[in-house]
Amino acid sequence: MADPHSRLSRRRLLGGGAAAAGVVGAAGIGWGAAGFTREEAVRDEALDVVPFYGAHQAGIETNPPGHVAFAGFDLAPGAGREDIIGLLRIWTDDASRLTQGLPALADTEPELATRPARLTITVGFGPELFTRAEMAERRPSWLRQLPPFPVDRLDPAYTGADLVLQICAEEATTVAHAVRVLSKHVKSLVTVRWVQRGFRDAPRGQTMRNLMGQVDGTVNIAPRTVDFDRLVWDDGASTPWLAGGTSLVLRRIAMDLDTWDELDADGRELTVGRRVSNGAPLTGTAEHDEPDLTAVDRNGIPVIPPSSHVARARHTHDGERFLRRGFNYDEAPAPGQLSNSGLLFVAYQRDVDAQFLPVQQRLAEFDALNEWTTPVGSAVFAIPPGVPGPGHYLGQQLFES
Amino acid sequence: MADPHSRLSRRRLLGGGAAAAGVVGAAGIGWGAAGFTREEAVRDEALDVVPFYGAHQAGIETNPPGHVAFAGFDLAPGAGREDIIGLLRIWTDDASRLTQGLPALADTEPELATRPARLTITVGFGPELFTRAEMAERRPSWLRQLPPFPVDRLDPAYTGADLVLQICAEEATTVAHAVRVLSKHVKSLVTVRWVQRGFRDAPRGQTMRNLMGQVDGTVNIAPRTVDFDRLVWDDGASTPWLAGGTSLVLRRIAMDLDTWDELDADGRELTVGRRVSNGAPLTGTAEHDEPDLTAVDRNGIPVIPPSSHVARARHTHDGERFLRRGFNYDEAPAPGQLSNSGLLFVAYQRDVDAQFLPVQQRLAEFDALNEWTTPVGSAVFAIPPGVPGPGHYLGQQLFES
Repeated sequence: MADPHSRLSRRRLLGGGAAAAGVVGAAGIGWGAAGFTREEAVRDEALDVVPFYGAHQAGIETNPPGHVAFAGFDLAPGAGREDIIGLLRIWTDDASRLTQGLPALADTEPELATRPARLTITVGFGPELFTRAEMAERRPSWLRQLPPFPVDRLDPAYTGADLVLQICAEEATTVAHAVRVLSKHVKSLVTVRWVQRGFRDAPRGQTMRNLMGQVDGTVNIAPRTVDFDRLVWDDGASTPWLAGGTSLVLRRIAMDLDTWDELDADGRELTVGRRVSNGAPLTGTAEHDEPDLTAVDRNGIPVIPPSSHVARARHTHDGERFLRRGFNYDEAPAPGQLSNSGLLFVAYQRDVDAQFLPVQQRLAEFDALNEWTTPVGSAVFAIPPGVPGPGHYLGQQLFES
Repeated sequence: MADPHSRLSRRRLLGGGAAAAGVVGAAGIGWGAAGFTREEAVRDEALDVVPFYGAHQAGIETNPPGHVAFAGFDLAPGAGREDIIGLLRIWTDDASRLTQGLPALADTEPELATRPARLTITVGFGPELFTRAEMAERRPSWLRQLPPFPVDRLDPAYTGADLVLQICAEEATTVAHAVRVLSKHVKSLVTVRWVQRGFRDAPRGQTMRNLMGQVDGTVNIAPRTVDFDRLVWDDGASTPWLAGGTSLVLRRIAMDLDTWDELDADGRELTVGRRVSNGAPLTGTAEHDEPDLTAVDRNGIPVIPPSSHVARARHTHDGERFLRRGFNYDEAPAPGQLSNSGLLFVAYQRDVDAQFLPVQQRLAEFDALNEWTTPVGSAVFAIPPGVPGPGHYLGQQLFES
């Protein structure tokens, strides 16, 4: 971090965008020292950091960046309460440093920590962790593997885990380094069950597209709103230690792009209930227009088919809303195949049973889109609240309240 | 592309960086119409395009962007000369459109083409293609699988191929779409042998770091120099159809990070011969200082060990230099493992036998770094020259000159 050149890039120009997004630079800017004029200088966005400490963990209300890795871990045989606390202390310390552009303690590749690139590290607890910690009575009522759905073809390689890390950043190298550090530092306590990488690319404030070409995630909950507080963050009423936390549902959804690509644009729009061009509902003109599920054409046929994804996924009341925060995945195809693509569907909500599950059950019962999508992985986690400041650790409220 | 908002992002600010790098915007900027002031406006770099037509294929002299996919294809049984020409016409047409931010013909996800993000698509020919095209006499003398090296542990899943696509862009979604389109459009003529994805993150003009934390690729050939023309681009002297083309060597190098991480900083620097902090040779202070392989300390011991990577990899004469253009990879670990990381080592040179092979042979014989690295994939390709303009196709010089 000593060379001012390392803080500058000609690729991106200085401005207020990062500050407006609640992101702060990790370091001052010294373009004069670097031999650039101010006009030439580019603030290196890879130095932007997201605060670590707070009432909530970062990575949920945070605008999703370009890259994610979800890592699922199983506790080693015999690892118990004190081991889990030790692990959480290590992860807290690592995350508090890495997210701020500082190497972890004993970081063997400290150079890879110097570009935090809006890194966030979010920790979650699987159902079995509570048993292993001998605190089964503190497990939230909704924390269990989802019930089996007829559409599921779950692969154990992507299903369940005792602990999860959601690691997000604008740069893939930053994500790789953080996954490595956090996995390695607790390797005597856990085994890696899966690592699932994803990406999303959209201009700020716009909705991403998935690899079927659809605008994906239009119906959502805006950060820093009353709705977000009400629908995403737990208030501790039924599970006091979880106040300020939430839940994470991660579903790996494989896409059959070969058959999807045989469907014409009209067929796609009737399947989804939205226009491919801009994501507008078939009854509207702009992406965020409310779908009118009662509208019919001159022949009395619903404009948005009742079987369409939009109609089936729509919350039937306000209490079914949740935060969508998905990422595309695209892996090497299996022999004889063209693609291995899909979506890491990520839902955050206060109560899985009340919010996510009714929607998921409707979609599993029937959704025109199911012909081209297959859930191949599934996991549910409780997300503890944030770390209020130095000296505390992630999940402390569970163990010490 | 109709909404001016789609051309603006608050993340990145308007400026001269892209133009200075030889990149041109795909679309004009309309921040007034978008409700932003000029100072607030951010030119969306995802609209930047790299020219497709030219004497050379793009993606070689081009500054490497954040993401790559290498896709290796085998010709279907029975596919011959006319099939190959047909395939190359399709790929030329697809690449000429996608790289400019336009959908391919019959693109089933045209929306995913609207963010070219400096997309380049580079095509190469494996050894067997010349036999299948009944033009074995036109195969360059150096175009064959590399000889086996004792350090190799090659996996057929990453080795050889009749055709290769190098697809590079700043956004992973753009790469995924291009791989899909180009694979799908020729699926009756080829099978996918492998797809290898990679990434690199460095401020413009600086050298990337690999996942061992090293500055990687310091010794290189600068674009748009006499050296580049002399060492990378073929002049057609021995293979007339290849004038303006080059060769590509792709080596997949697995890293054993678990044992690497047991090595302290001094051990790493003696292994590599460079400082971890800034990539300077142990005899210098700055990254691009020339290593002094003759320097000894007061005990007469070489400052840069003769067994170090720098000493072994160093060209012994100017004619052994080549272009390095590598990318990191980081895949899901195998069961029981922590990491599955490494480097897609990519070398471009006029003559594999004269330039790359002597260096590779020295490294395979002995390189201190070999204790932590293992080549697990290997392929060599001839890269035909660029397409001079519309109406021509990639590789036409091979078939029609």
